[in-house]
Amino acid sequence: MAKARNIKMILSYDGSSFMGWQAQPGQRTVQSTVEDVLKIIFDEQIRINAAGRTDAGVHAFGQVAAFSTLSSITTGALQKAINSLLPDDISIISVEDAPEEFHPRYSAKSKTYLYAIDTSSVRNPFFSRYALHARHRLDIESMMQSTGYFIGEHDFASFMGAGTPVKSTVRTISASEITVRGSMVYYTIRGSGFLRHMVRNIVGTLVEVGKGKIPIDGIDEIIKAKDRSMAGPTAPPQGLYLVNVKY
Amino acid sequence: MAKARNIKMILSYDGSSFMGWQAQPGQRTVQSTVEDVLKIIFDEQIRINAAGRTDAGVHAFGQVAAFSTLSSITTGALQKAINSLLPDDISIISVEDAPEEFHPRYSAKSKTYLYAIDTSSVRNPFFSRYALHARHRLDIESMMQSTGYFIGEHDFASFMGAGTPVKSTVRTISASEITVRGSMVYYTIRGSGFLRHMVRNIVGTLVEVGKGKIPIDGIDEIIKAKDRSMAGPTAPPQGLYLVNVKY
Repeated sequence: MAKARNIKMILSYDGSSFMGWQAQPGQRTVQSTVEDVLKIIFDEQIRINAAGRTDAGVHAFGQVAAFSTLSSITTGALQKAINSLLPDDISIISVEDAPEEFHPRYSAKSKTYLYAIDTSSVRNPFFSRYALHARHRLDIESMMQSTGYFIGEHDFASFMGAGTPVKSTVRTISASEITVRGSMVYYTIRGSGFLRHMVRNIVGTLVEVGKGKIPIDGIDEIIKAKDRSMAGPTAPPQGLYLVNVKY
Repeated sequence: MAKARNIKMILSYDGSSFMGWQAQPGQRTVQSTVEDVLKIIFDEQIRINAAGRTDAGVHAFGQVAAFSTLSSITTGALQKAINSLLPDDISIISVEDAPEEFHPRYSAKSKTYLYAIDTSSVRNPFFSRYALHARHRLDIESMMQSTGYFIGEHDFASFMGAGTPVKSTVRTISASEITVRGSMVYYTIRGSGFLRHMVRNIVGTLVEVGKGKIPIDGIDEIIKAKDRSMAGPTAPPQGLYLVNVKY
């Protein structure tokens, strides 16, 4: 009998028209859209696992997913077949055979997310699905100075969205920085793992710093408080991108 | 009694979620969305005219529209009021008082359209609403060489979509060129006026040149034939942008 292969895919998708990654009855999700295509190709129900279960409206440049198959199809042919059947808002960037023990989520060493903020005074209508529009003038310099507080190993309980309980709210962040290009402000964060809504809650808090409602060093206090009510609101999903996952 | 003012607006919109410019019962259109907002502001039904009635899915960086009002509101306050009430996929770029005789369509000296083609081998999912993805490899050099045939005064009957009859199918094109940036190909065309679907039919024909199905100088023959069946197919709406209107 053929040995099961563990196929690793890198996917890019525009999350605007998806109810997130995870399959849900009656909803258009990325997982179910890809699984439907795999069912056509392999003529059997195939379950895929992803590195990060992105929320509704969240985008991905480099989501990673994997599935198991006994088929001997080449990775090149498989990529072409999947892409030809997928809708225009998802693309498979690469397909490769991975070691048997590879798991997109459990094997991940780091994930990088990007959050886009449009600070132009007149809203750019082309960014409505792709960035947060800041209605107030933001003090970008203060936001830049406060990003450093997130780096390192911290208990991020203050930045965790309500939902499924987790064993530990401690996470390690290796990069947290803001870059500016014209009227666009991009926040990049890289870490070993993230709690539910953690990036969006961090961005919502950084925006409060930009508005002057939270002082630069207030971030330190908010982290120490381990209290969600201390941090800023959850930034909307459309500004968030899963950039890549490293193994 | 106050003299009626003629208000000129420049609008930008992401056409993805609109059934085009023109108001249609039960449809979300740009015209009716803006008119609904003006009705809230002025407490009366106001009819707006546009420079170009863009089709469903077509975008605008600089659409021009005008309407008449007796109100003495400042143009700055009006712009802010409209933008605060409009949905995120339309923005008013500017508002100004125009001469009484100004009409967005009849006063226009030229209109510029841009068409975006994504030639990357793996489709970029973020361009699904914003560009045509070329599934075949295109000979861009040949496309570039053929663009010149459209410049000047020609009978564009071969490039007119079916629909409302027009008095004349002669139009004057002052610019027609292709620029390349990475895997994106941008076609820009400027003219005194355009027939229905004319830009999309020209782009569909240029793509046939890129595929080698129509020779470079075949454009000349197609124009002379005054026969829609000689030209290429109508390129899809999502790659098209009304860039600006000059008066």
